[in-house]
Amino acid sequence: MKRVPIIGVMGGGSVCAEDADNAYRLGRLIAKEGWILLNGGRKAGIMDASAKGAKDHGGLTIGILPDDTCHGASDYIDIPIITGMGNARNCINTLTSDVVVACPGGAGTLSEIALALKNNKPVILLNFPLNTAFERYRQQGLLFFSPTPEDCIEKIKAILSQ
Amino acid sequence: MKRVPIIGVMGGGSVCAEDADNAYRLGRLIAKEGWILLNGGRKAGIMDASAKGAKDHGGLTIGILPDDTCHGASDYIDIPIITGMGNARNCINTLTSDVVVACPGGAGTLSEIALALKNNKPVILLNFPLNTAFERYRQQGLLFFSPTPEDCIEKIKAILSQ
Amino acid sequence: MKRVPIIGVMGGGSVCAEDADNAYRLGRLIAKEGWILLNGGRKAGIMDASAKGAKDHGGLTIGILPDDTCHGASDYIDIPIITGMGNARNCINTLTSDVVVACPGGAGTLSEIALALKNNKPVILLNFPLNTAFERYRQQGLLFFSPTPEDCIEKIKAILSQ
Amino acid sequence: MKRVPIIGVMGGGSVCAEDADNAYRLGRLIAKEGWILLNGGRKAGIMDASAKGAKDHGGLTIGILPDDTCHGASDYIDIPIITGMGNARNCINTLTSDVVVACPGGAGTLSEIALALKNNKPVILLNFPLNTAFERYRQQGLLFFSPTPEDCIEKIKAILSQ
Repeated sequence: MKRVPIIGVMGGGSVCAEDADNAYRLGRLIAKEGWILLNGGRKAGIMDASAKGAKDHGGLTIGILPDDTCHGASDYIDIPIITGMGNARNCINTLTSDVVVACPGGAGTLSEIALALKNNKPVILLNFPLNTAFERYRQQGLLFFSPTPEDCIEKIKAILSQ
Repeated sequence: MKRVPIIGVMGGGSVCAEDADNAYRLGRLIAKEGWILLNGGRKAGIMDASAKGAKDHGGLTIGILPDDTCHGASDYIDIPIITGMGNARNCINTLTSDVVVACPGGAGTLSEIALALKNNKPVILLNFPLNTAFERYRQQGLLFFSPTPEDCIEKIKAILSQ
Repeated sequence: MKRVPIIGVMGGGSVCAEDADNAYRLGRLIAKEGWILLNGGRKAGIMDASAKGAKDHGGLTIGILPDDTCHGASDYIDIPIITGMGNARNCINTLTSDVVVACPGGAGTLSEIALALKNNKPVILLNFPLNTAFERYRQQGLLFFSPTPEDCIEKIKAILSQ
Repeated sequence: MKRVPIIGVMGGGSVCAEDADNAYRLGRLIAKEGWILLNGGRKAGIMDASAKGAKDHGGLTIGILPDDTCHGASDYIDIPIITGMGNARNCINTLTSDVVVACPGGAGTLSEIALALKNNKPVILLNFPLNTAFERYRQQGLLFFSPTPEDCIEKIKAILSQ
């Protein structure tokens, strides 16, 4: 690869101290390697922590922002790419990264892992127990399991009647 | 809800006979309820089977296509929406659907489940064992698990040097 | 063409009575031909008037909405396609239409005309004097003419220092 | 503005020597000011010339690419943002730029001018005679003028019957 590698760091907007610390350390190590760090660009959670880690150690940071202005961008992003496309920007995150690292997060992070794999991009899960990540949505009553088409229809009717 | 409900049916482009049969039956039942069926629009797998099920029973079908022409669209799609946006169209699939049913599929289907949940859309998994869906990508050498930022960097180096 | 033709009707969100009347009549005529009407879906200007014209005469209407909910959609849209992509949805409007009719509007409509032409879609301007359409932006101080790269730089400096 | 300004340079993929020279000089001047140059990223026309002008003089260049790989990117782009979204990436070009300079081009460039104005971004036309830019499409038989809705319908019928 002749260009400088771009490493995507994905993860939740609201995370625990350990995950934020891991993201900061990862950002620092990416900067030390001379790689470019790319993330979702917001001033929150894994995005802010990983960008700060890279900037504190001389790295270059790119943020792919969901909104149509810079509002809410991390102060540690050098190059804010403003998409105005909401979660569709998650596709850009994964296509632009040479490798994707996924720190713990919710459905947005899960979509980035899936989109990366769909595009044949290598994905590294950093302390992210993928198998249980969807479980919270089942507990919230958003995710259901159904054995047959007929049962699906009953569940759809119940949802639509709410 | 005063509009006719739009039910999204997601799933793989290449599936087994049982899954295709379930998708066909689901399409038929959606049509019988008078609901609109929406899917990814391609002439393949769950998309083609669910659209055929709906059309054979008088339903209306919408296909949100990834390419910039109708080429490759299912013959059972009444209204092809041509996005030219690749997988970014998966966001539109989930935002436009009132309820999403996910039949078995790969990373594209996983991204639609995640994007739907991100947008607070109810998701029903029809015979789709979500917990093992990512496993095939680990076996393919695309998905890795890592305990520390330092280990991540080693894995990224190995990937970049390939 | 074996599918029912989809006719895109573009135009401003705030228009004069004559333009709204033309859009209503155009929507009616599209419905009478048995074609599907597609527009930007909002409850405003050409979008609302053309959809009402089609619905009042038994037509089918599709609205490609910019936001991530149905909020602000015209009551005369049968099928709201929710993109969450802002003006990027203008690409979908033009790719999905077999022919685009542009009624008077501002920069959004101009972008749809240009995107349609870029995609080799026929465009019919209905009472829309294209040559003067950009003029209002020059008068607003948003659009500048420059003869040389050096002059460009001076203008950029003046803009950035505001 | 505390961030480094990002200057968008738009223009055709196939241009005359004078326009390419202007784009090269503009890229050089942008680099000399210490600004970041952003363009559509392809190895063609205004994109390639402006990026080369900036790189030859120590600038930083960002290319917002339409395809889902780096294939076809200019060698003078430091940071390729891969969107996989075709012309929808034109929205990102204009949202991310603080000021847009439009060099001569076709419908793609016209769409970027219009999208920039729609987003209230200042646009400078460098030797680009906007008023005649659409004329080539009328001559190609893609762009038509119509005085009434009834006349529109006749034109649509003629187009659909081709």
